Amino acid sequence: PSASAEAEARAHQTQLTKPAGSLGRLESLAVAFAGFQGCVKPTLERIVIRVFAADHGIAAQGTSAYPQEVTAQMLANFCHGGAAVSVLAGLLDADFRAVNLGCVGKVAPHKNLIDNTIASATADFSSAPAMTAERLSAALNAGFAQAQQGDLFIGGEMGIGNTTSAAALLAALFHLAPEAITGKGTGIDEATLARKTQLIGKALKLHRDQLTNPAAILQRLGGFEIAALVGAYIGSAQQGVPVLVDGFISTAAAAIAVALQPTLAPWLLYAHLSNESGHKLALNKLNAQPILALDMRLGEGSGAALAAGVVRQALALHNTMATFADAGVSHAD
Amino acid sequence: PSASAEAEARAHQTQLTKPAGSLGRLESLAVAFAGFQGCVKPTLERIVIRVFAADHGIAAQGTSAYPQEVTAQMLANFCHGGAAVSVLAGLLDADFRAVNLGCVGKVAPHKNLIDNTIASATADFSSAPAMTAERLSAALNAGFAQAQQGDLFIGGEMGIGNTTSAAALLAALFHLAPEAITGKGTGIDEATLARKTQLIGKALKLHRDQLTNPAAILQRLGGFEIAALVGAYIGSAQQGVPVLVDGFISTAAAAIAVALQPTLAPWLLYAHLSNESGHKLALNKLNAQPILALDMRLGEGSGAALAAGVVRQALALHNTMATFADAGVSHAD
Repeated sequence: PSASAEAEARAHQTQLTKPAGSLGRLESLAVAFAGFQGCVKPTLERIVIRVFAADHGIAAQGTSAYPQEVTAQMLANFCHGGAAVSVLAGLLDADFRAVNLGCVGKVAPHKNLIDNTIASATADFSSAPAMTAERLSAALNAGFAQAQQGDLFIGGEMGIGNTTSAAALLAALFHLAPEAITGKGTGIDEATLARKTQLIGKALKLHRDQLTNPAAILQRLGGFEIAALVGAYIGSAQQGVPVLVDGFISTAAAAIAVALQPTLAPWLLYAHLSNESGHKLALNKLNAQPILALDMRLGEGSGAALAAGVVRQALALHNTMATFADAGVSHAD
Repeated sequence: PSASAEAEARAHQTQLTKPAGSLGRLESLAVAFAGFQGCVKPTLERIVIRVFAADHGIAAQGTSAYPQEVTAQMLANFCHGGAAVSVLAGLLDADFRAVNLGCVGKVAPHKNLIDNTIASATADFSSAPAMTAERLSAALNAGFAQAQQGDLFIGGEMGIGNTTSAAALLAALFHLAPEAITGKGTGIDEATLARKTQLIGKALKLHRDQLTNPAAILQRLGGFEIAALVGAYIGSAQQGVPVLVDGFISTAAAAIAVALQPTLAPWLLYAHLSNESGHKLALNKLNAQPILALDMRLGEGSGAALAAGVVRQALALHNTMATFADAGVSHAD
């Protein structure tokens, strides 16, 4: 991001007809986008949303409230416009596509669907590495290929079992106890939560000697859609396109991406604090200040799409409010 | 609000293609609007925004960072579209007007300005009642007259010195120590904050024997624009129009309104947690859960206008997401 454009935008904010600082987070969002776009009056027009979906071997252990076939069913729902993120993408007039990295169910071709099938699912990481190095590479590349010019990139994810994977990734990366980071995902009961937590502990033990760097952690414990998010975040930042990171699973992808490439960090904004219990801890580890906190826990990029609306309002204020001089309003004493 | 429409909307939410409860606050907002509109699929089209402005005698004591002439200058800025709330009203395509209840500076006529001048300012409430019973009545009526049919009412306020009045109102109503509720308003220094807090303490002592009911509290310590907000909230609720309450000063008006008329409470939603230090305490006293927390402290209705965007997104999701049956997506196990 351009420090000089940020400074110019900060100076512009002090001229607007309001007490200095009184628009709070809206001011810092406008300043951040000035830095991203290298100009004092940034705009948020072209928003690219990609929802990556894949199935998880770990789901065979029964860690989710939903059957695995839902991943493919929801891919179709994304394409047909019925899912939450599809509705929000329509409101934002975003460029929206769903990307299939591989799921157990069949998905019919559709103009909004990109087929990047790697395998029908990852392996069950409680007993084997989730994926081979080749498959990790394919997933990272599939995500990287979706990065493109625009004012904002939003990545979403779908995959029955993927909060289990995300919790394992965060536990390994930040050396957290499984109990501290594992939550109820789509809504499991206490007994299933206990089993899910135990499974993560088992996997951390099994792969312990290999969990020495972020790529290895992702290969051993990740999912194809999570790796695709990592690739997409890295690709977007390389093209100077900022990213609104969604909820718990996307934050796990962001944590891996930043660990792989620390220069990425300034290009990532965190959309919201999710209701998934480990999200607050993960955001704290990343020093991230989420924009919204609406008790959401849906994923798909839905929280990020909501926050994009707030960014648009912030930029409209920054760009079109009158200055003290324009409006003939007196400054503070 | 209609309990049966709320129940129908809650049942509809369980059919949408997402884990139950995963849209968090967005679900409860949709259910609340179903209750307000008495139908399972509510919409947020007509939004009425009125910004009430007036000057305060207490400002002579130097409790604000801005000179008193700013109230009239900002009234003109509201009308010409340069203020934050004007920009946000434009984005919402809202019906927007500024209402002058009386200020020290001159305000030129404008098609967006409603002139309800009562006096050039209230009296300094640290040495006299802020207003007579007749003036209180005029201000309440002026606000009440702005209530009208629509899907949502947003009230804003402007008045140099009005965080002092709002803090005094909340202290009297909820029996709070001035230190607990008094904040820095538009951005005063520590010495001015100490003086502002002392002045409120002095006023609470002076009027002590009369602060026995909400109307008397409002007459002794209030402002014309705050009384107008009270009238507008009561009028809106009487017409079955919900209100998004803005920040600290609007919350003081809401607290008085609810104390005057407890049946009003279900019609009030609280838009955001402001950065003004006493706001959290005031919201807690009202059992209010704000929708946003963006460190704003501008007033004018700006936080409520931002939150209205979130409500629109919530209703779009509620009304247009696919159901499990429509989309052929499996339910939870």
